[in-house]
Amino acid sequence: MKQLESHFETLIGGQLPLNLYEPVHYVLTQGGKRIRPYLVMQANELFGGNPKTVLYPAAAFEMLHNFTLIHDDIMDNAPLRRGKPTVYKKWNSSIAILAGDALATMAFQELLKTPCSSETLIEMCRLFARTSVEICEGQQYDLDFETADSVSKEAYLDMIRLKTAVMLAGCLKAGALHASAAAADCNRIYDFGINLGMAFQLQDDILDVYGDKALFGKVCGGDIRDNKKTYLYIVALEKADEAQRAKLQHYFGSTDFDFQEKYNAVKAIFDALEIKKETEQVMQSYVDKAIAQLVLIHSDSPAKETLHNLTLKLCNRNQ
Amino acid sequence: MKQLESHFETLIGGQLPLNLYEPVHYVLTQGGKRIRPYLVMQANELFGGNPKTVLYPAAAFEMLHNFTLIHDDIMDNAPLRRGKPTVYKKWNSSIAILAGDALATMAFQELLKTPCSSETLIEMCRLFARTSVEICEGQQYDLDFETADSVSKEAYLDMIRLKTAVMLAGCLKAGALHASAAAADCNRIYDFGINLGMAFQLQDDILDVYGDKALFGKVCGGDIRDNKKTYLYIVALEKADEAQRAKLQHYFGSTDFDFQEKYNAVKAIFDALEIKKETEQVMQSYVDKAIAQLVLIHSDSPAKETLHNLTLKLCNRNQ
Repeated sequence: MKQLESHFETLIGGQLPLNLYEPVHYVLTQGGKRIRPYLVMQANELFGGNPKTVLYPAAAFEMLHNFTLIHDDIMDNAPLRRGKPTVYKKWNSSIAILAGDALATMAFQELLKTPCSSETLIEMCRLFARTSVEICEGQQYDLDFETADSVSKEAYLDMIRLKTAVMLAGCLKAGALHASAAAADCNRIYDFGINLGMAFQLQDDILDVYGDKALFGKVCGGDIRDNKKTYLYIVALEKADEAQRAKLQHYFGSTDFDFQEKYNAVKAIFDALEIKKETEQVMQSYVDKAIAQLVLIHSDSPAKETLHNLTLKLCNRNQ
Repeated sequence: MKQLESHFETLIGGQLPLNLYEPVHYVLTQGGKRIRPYLVMQANELFGGNPKTVLYPAAAFEMLHNFTLIHDDIMDNAPLRRGKPTVYKKWNSSIAILAGDALATMAFQELLKTPCSSETLIEMCRLFARTSVEICEGQQYDLDFETADSVSKEAYLDMIRLKTAVMLAGCLKAGALHASAAAADCNRIYDFGINLGMAFQLQDDILDVYGDKALFGKVCGGDIRDNKKTYLYIVALEKADEAQRAKLQHYFGSTDFDFQEKYNAVKAIFDALEIKKETEQVMQSYVDKAIAQLVLIHSDSPAKETLHNLTLKLCNRNQ
């Protein structure tokens, strides 16, 4: 991962115009969890790929991820990201739109640098493009849900599949393709990634309400404050009696409430309806499906255990 | 070109989410001059390529062009495009950002459908990505120039090279690559396109001031109204005496003037300094360079004469 950081440090070096490339450099060198390139590298190791040349697809997926963050922050009016001003706040929204556009294409260029067979490269490009379009679909569903009267569990799960899971799955499959894994194994690692991503996002939803405030990166209760229709909220609305439903809709109808009062009231309903337990069960079912795919994969690499442990860790985290 | 229109009609057919794909369909089926796919097809014909499969790179470049328009219209607060509301006006800016993002990636997907050798496809992808990044650079320079105290002729010419010319050059080279043209010819048709694009944009600058109002698509004098630092303005500022410079800077320092008064005053200075003639000379030098490249290309196809005539027509148009 050190390699990746220094790669990003040197990728942009004083290119002009400054107002295009400074924001791109700013975003790429801000750190972050780097989960996506890590997954590309682990899948590559799992199938015995070249650990040096995998840097290009790994960097490409992290760049794709960062491009989506730049544009999402404009849409969400988010002032901060990773504790620093977002691009559109630090510069302006025109610069943020363009820097995102440039970064999205630079991600493709990075992928196109991968020294591998032309056939593999094209397959990686097709996967990359499909992932990128699906993320747009997920983000649009997420925006649509903000103003929707009601959202079904199925629609919500499909949204997080597109917005979160396909990217993790795409990273893993790209690593497998780079390592010339068999087609069946490429599909298995993709399915593993989809289920891992679903579990990961459901855990995120749980942590927003039940996470350890000191450890949890974001402010606890942010989803409740912003009236986000998370899986917990959707299930609660489904299980609620008339009084509870009225209360939930009352609190989710405005952002003008005292935060602590709203958070406590909503959490009390979640507790009464045992929403946490039900969400954890659904999350666990995705963890089980992920592990089942992983077990089927033909590999003696220690990366298999690493991915197994990562799955358990991501879904038992408290931050 | 009919094939292209029906291709765009059927490319999007009720995909979900509607708020993502409706704006994309709206933009792609609005017509427009289709110069870019026309150039891809002509270059393909010039080198004897398959006229059916060239549809994919042709569509891809037109989609790339339309993606840039969707995002540019947000940055420019433009209410209308081709006589219809822009995406950000008809929907909103979040939807316009996302529709543009999706369309940019769908353009790549379209290119990746081209049935040709893997090596050619990768070369087309690299060209496509480079073109896309350079257009971002050109747009950023254009934004930078809005607030710059002064812009040199060289900086302006470099901006229009990136913003306009590389796209036309990229279209032509993509057509040549698709037709498996020799490397030297691919480079010649690219250089032809750069010079054609430069001449085309300079003619656009001239027409904004001197075009036939009835024929010219846009409102005449729009660049003057918006204080755009066009080639004419930059040369005028360079040649102006003290009184003329003061007057130009006075009128370009605000948008609050009566339009007709401002237009007449600025045009009178341009006339006195013979700016039209000087700009036409520079434009003509690009036309000459374009033709010189075209002549060197090895081809007996009638497309050679078509491209020759197109060059003369684009640079002698009055609309």
